[in-house]
Amino acid sequence: MNSANPADLRFSFTGFAARGGLTDHHGDGFGVGFFEDKACRLFMDNQPASASPVADLLKNYAIKSRNVVAHIRKATQGDALRLENCHPFTRELWGRHWLFAHNGDLQGYRPRLDGNYLPVGSTDSELAFCDIMQTLRAVNPPMCSDGATSVAPCSLDKVFDALHEVTQRTAEHGVFNFLLSNGQAMFAHCSTRLWYLVRQWPFSNAQLIDADLSMDFAQTNASNDRLCIIATQPLTRNEHWQQLEPGQLLWIEGGHIVRREQLRVSDEVRRKNEENLACV
Amino acid sequence: MNSANPADLRFSFTGFAARGGLTDHHGDGFGVGFFEDKACRLFMDNQPASASPVADLLKNYAIKSRNVVAHIRKATQGDALRLENCHPFTRELWGRHWLFAHNGDLQGYRPRLDGNYLPVGSTDSELAFCDIMQTLRAVNPPMCSDGATSVAPCSLDKVFDALHEVTQRTAEHGVFNFLLSNGQAMFAHCSTRLWYLVRQWPFSNAQLIDADLSMDFAQTNASNDRLCIIATQPLTRNEHWQQLEPGQLLWIEGGHIVRREQLRVSDEVRRKNEENLACV
Repeated sequence: MNSANPADLRFSFTGFAARGGLTDHHGDGFGVGFFEDKACRLFMDNQPASASPVADLLKNYAIKSRNVVAHIRKATQGDALRLENCHPFTRELWGRHWLFAHNGDLQGYRPRLDGNYLPVGSTDSELAFCDIMQTLRAVNPPMCSDGATSVAPCSLDKVFDALHEVTQRTAEHGVFNFLLSNGQAMFAHCSTRLWYLVRQWPFSNAQLIDADLSMDFAQTNASNDRLCIIATQPLTRNEHWQQLEPGQLLWIEGGHIVRREQLRVSDEVRRKNEENLACV
Repeated sequence: MNSANPADLRFSFTGFAARGGLTDHHGDGFGVGFFEDKACRLFMDNQPASASPVADLLKNYAIKSRNVVAHIRKATQGDALRLENCHPFTRELWGRHWLFAHNGDLQGYRPRLDGNYLPVGSTDSELAFCDIMQTLRAVNPPMCSDGATSVAPCSLDKVFDALHEVTQRTAEHGVFNFLLSNGQAMFAHCSTRLWYLVRQWPFSNAQLIDADLSMDFAQTNASNDRLCIIATQPLTRNEHWQQLEPGQLLWIEGGHIVRREQLRVSDEVRRKNEENLACV
């Protein structure tokens, strides 16, 4: 989720959490990372989101955030219930936290890591995140600082260009749907399946698909509220969800799509990914 | 807390959380980081620990851990309620997460950061953590890796020696009580006030100081359980808490003190810190 104003995600999370073992089979743990300005709070559990006390907290405790990355896990690589393999993963770059969550499976993937970021767990996903972080870092290497000087921030245009390059390269290895955020913007890549929704004025009533719960956003939202939700499957009925094409890379900020690029997807990768998707 | 076997911290946390605004005035948020082997789960809130729903979760949800770093905040530097200024802070080094919490106040402190680790928030504490992490990193710079090779781990003896050096240097700037852990070991430095307790067989009944709660560890613990709790003030009555001398740096592993060094503390620093302590 990315939004113009800090937003309360309890409604969406309630539907999302049901997919962690109840309405869907992603029962190998979950994680939700909330940016509160520069701060980043990450809640994880290796219990299914539908049954976890940590998920219960998040259904009831209002954390207002402009950028949220949530993931329910169906293990494909790495020990299923080991918490170090739970997404989203987090690292620091340019004095900001970054969050990354991946849905997919990379084959024959051995990026050359320069040591600036190393994986803690054993997933292809965390490897890819380390590669992304070192690629972004190389665009604008952090400088020496005496502790008082702030770091020159990297323009998000440069970040997006570098992300294009590393995503193109990584997506050759298989299914690579991901979300990445530094608390300012959300970046999303659709490799096989990703939907998005822009929720803005005039607001209306939305009904969760995975739980018997609806909410009238016309009652709760201000006219300048605007948010974008990106998910593997639509979370609500009666809202205008749009499916992304394979190879689409988005930069979302303030609830708007700021830039959108179409990556090359080779026929071979497309065919393999479609087979992979058919097996899910 | 550091222990030989994964331990449930709910009893201690209940007393500790009361100090966050109830029995003590550290009401500017709190944080607790649990290592579960290599994984690290960090729970934070900017509400006082005595009133926070996140703290309520932790009083009731058993997370078993060998290394826990907890901190209740009384802001001295950095905006009080900004979550990015809440301890413990976390960074990755050598494919492991590290947690750091600081109790104190550093004056005229401007470490030269090489850019490998940069602070997200505005506290002296996070600056000191970045300096510690880059100092440790320089002892054993991470090597290039093709993603499959594991990183050569650094011996904890080398870590302890490097920590000795950076702590000595940083402690010249003021009060620098800290806890640092990578999930294998806990390192603790006493600048002004730190107590520790080794809880081992034969276990007995312990009574919290800050809450009307007692626990008979003879009923719950196995004979090979052993843990070490390090805290600003003893958490329980009727247990053998020992006070550390200013300048003591400890390496604790498996519930044992493995190494202990006495750092030089200049008379000037000692006098200033004592004045500072008297004002608390």
